[in-house]
Amino acid sequence: MTHTAELIAVGTELLLGNIVNSDAQMLSQGLSALGINVYYHTVVGDNPQRLRAAVETAKSRADIIITTGGLGPTCDDLTKNVLADCFGKKLIYNEEAARRIEEYFQRLDRPMTENNYQQAYLPEGCVPFQNDWGTAPGCGFEAEGVRVLMLPGPPSECTPMFHERAVPYLRDLTDGVIVSRSLRIFGMGESAVEALLRDKMNAMQNPTLAPYAKEGEVELRITAKAPDAQTALDLIAPVEKELREQFGPLVYGADVPSLEAVCFGLLKEKGLTLSSAESCTGGLIPKRITDMGGVSAVYKGGVVSYWSEVKHSALGVPQEMLDEYGAVSVPVAQAMAEGVRARMDTDLAVATTGVAGPGPDERGNPVGLVYVALSWDGGTFVRTVHAAGPRSRVRQLAANHAFDLVRRHLMGLPLELE
Amino acid sequence: MTHTAELIAVGTELLLGNIVNSDAQMLSQGLSALGINVYYHTVVGDNPQRLRAAVETAKSRADIIITTGGLGPTCDDLTKNVLADCFGKKLIYNEEAARRIEEYFQRLDRPMTENNYQQAYLPEGCVPFQNDWGTAPGCGFEAEGVRVLMLPGPPSECTPMFHERAVPYLRDLTDGVIVSRSLRIFGMGESAVEALLRDKMNAMQNPTLAPYAKEGEVELRITAKAPDAQTALDLIAPVEKELREQFGPLVYGADVPSLEAVCFGLLKEKGLTLSSAESCTGGLIPKRITDMGGVSAVYKGGVVSYWSEVKHSALGVPQEMLDEYGAVSVPVAQAMAEGVRARMDTDLAVATTGVAGPGPDERGNPVGLVYVALSWDGGTFVRTVHAAGPRSRVRQLAANHAFDLVRRHLMGLPLELE
Repeated sequence: MTHTAELIAVGTELLLGNIVNSDAQMLSQGLSALGINVYYHTVVGDNPQRLRAAVETAKSRADIIITTGGLGPTCDDLTKNVLADCFGKKLIYNEEAARRIEEYFQRLDRPMTENNYQQAYLPEGCVPFQNDWGTAPGCGFEAEGVRVLMLPGPPSECTPMFHERAVPYLRDLTDGVIVSRSLRIFGMGESAVEALLRDKMNAMQNPTLAPYAKEGEVELRITAKAPDAQTALDLIAPVEKELREQFGPLVYGADVPSLEAVCFGLLKEKGLTLSSAESCTGGLIPKRITDMGGVSAVYKGGVVSYWSEVKHSALGVPQEMLDEYGAVSVPVAQAMAEGVRARMDTDLAVATTGVAGPGPDERGNPVGLVYVALSWDGGTFVRTVHAAGPRSRVRQLAANHAFDLVRRHLMGLPLELE
Repeated sequence: MTHTAELIAVGTELLLGNIVNSDAQMLSQGLSALGINVYYHTVVGDNPQRLRAAVETAKSRADIIITTGGLGPTCDDLTKNVLADCFGKKLIYNEEAARRIEEYFQRLDRPMTENNYQQAYLPEGCVPFQNDWGTAPGCGFEAEGVRVLMLPGPPSECTPMFHERAVPYLRDLTDGVIVSRSLRIFGMGESAVEALLRDKMNAMQNPTLAPYAKEGEVELRITAKAPDAQTALDLIAPVEKELREQFGPLVYGADVPSLEAVCFGLLKEKGLTLSSAESCTGGLIPKRITDMGGVSAVYKGGVVSYWSEVKHSALGVPQEMLDEYGAVSVPVAQAMAEGVRARMDTDLAVATTGVAGPGPDERGNPVGLVYVALSWDGGTFVRTVHAAGPRSRVRQLAANHAFDLVRRHLMGLPLELE
């Protein structure tokens, strides 16, 4: 039997546009993975009458209602009161929930006020959802043929509460499992990928295949539905194999967070070090690398040489080369990568020099032209990139190409695209 | 008279969680600024029955309905067909709209297909909203006492279409204007700011005052409603003056995008240059600076010295100093700033060294301890920062402190916090 869920977010801050309803996105993804349909999202403010109207409408067309927000003392536990009332339930003091809230405050060494105890009142007969990520507990109950689940609003609480509490509570409603695997592709545009796959995608039923465009790359999601996880994975495997053959070195990983994470893993595995020299990406490459904890095992440092004189003084790019070819040129990209590799004594080094925009450079090089170099003990390779789009996209794409060169080198793949 | 708007987003990709409903946030902010109440957001899929149900419900409780999405040929112009039908309108071929679509394709040098002409059919008697940012035109019409507005779904089209087309169309419904001004505060936590202002905020009616926490800083929004903009600004001015007196050097600007943007403006105005030397922020400072176009006028470059040996080799930090005090120390922060300033020959230089996490460093320095230095021709100042939170927050906060030192120095304010 297929189930239908309706999401109701409670919070005036959503209606004022102070925050975006990211809980709805997270819940929709999660419910879709469980094979549960979502036909409506609704957002209401901190208002009992309007929340009641939304709940009455949802009751008439869904058999699962999930609310987010409106659980804390600042809104007088609006959601709990209205939902309990809509389904004819009383709120009852839950000793266990009270104890958990006390513990939470003790752990944070913060004083607990009287209205925090109010959060321990829960609808009679419910399953309390212990909140290890905040103070307001959630809960689930069944009434009038509807499963009602209440989750806290802050995404940092709602996300773990959904996965750790709500999903187990809904498990008996889902027949079978839905398993996805994401192949990440760099080096081909979304429309080209889609054109190559359109017939295949249209012909597929289970698993399904869908492309998603990310910043300068494409994610191919293979999703299978089966009675158990192993059967789903067995359905996915041949499709993944076929796609890997079709796209070859463009596939940089499956279920991996990013190109830089793949580089980090490969560098660590091989015990190699990396440095960077940048012009147009201006710190974006080390920023993305050092976003990851523990990366000092492989990344030694870098130079942001935004001015030409810094390319000369800090990286040793010859002044005559800068004068003759200009800062945005193949020889300068090569000299930057080689310069930083020698000075920082690393196994590999990447470099970028190009025109991020908004306008062309003083030599007339167009916005989006970037030279991306990789230097290693056997040589230096420079890739010419023509990136389309605004400044932020040109920079992200240039950084992606730098990571792609590192990845391809470490995996023994050709450094040329195509 | 106060008007009530209801937002209906159309798109199965929202119900699957592939995208977040950012249009609703943007529209809510915009309508709130017009003094129009928003009581409900609804999201439905590409399904005529369910869209119809949502529209019928909205008709019963709102006098403005704004739809987003479902206008293009891929969804068979679902929204236009259903909305026209719900209000008993025919769709009529609009020559002008067809011509605009043709022009759009010519400008992009892309072929126009037959189904693009379908987009030129609009509800009879409507006001077409010309779309200069995409192909699907929007429109507005009035029927049964309700204003109905249809906007395209992609945020890059929806946002300008709202501001350039929908707002003028709604202008006659709004009596007076709402004007906001945002004071940006750095150096005091949100709860401390809120505690200082609570009584004042509660007592205020027009203008109102509301604090918003941002990454490591606080925005204070003063919002006034008045018959015209000048009267609104006159209401805001004394409140702004009072807040500036109360928070003194913590206020870094009004209606400015960021700390780094304020630094850029000040450096440019004074004709000064900046460089950076980073450990824990690892490229974040130059990344944030070079996110802004034209910044090469003031930013020469920087060094990311993630390893201690790079602090020595690329910045000239003495090895004995690193051995004695460790990389995370006041003397090293000072030497990094002075080193990069000398080597890159800039007027000012900033430096960061600290523990971003996830764990303490090998000398036992705790996560969140960061030394942030500013060097100028008259000396060097080091600020000790204790940042709470995960790695990303520690890094953002450390970068904020670096920019704050630059700003305070250039404005002749004390460099010490408090």
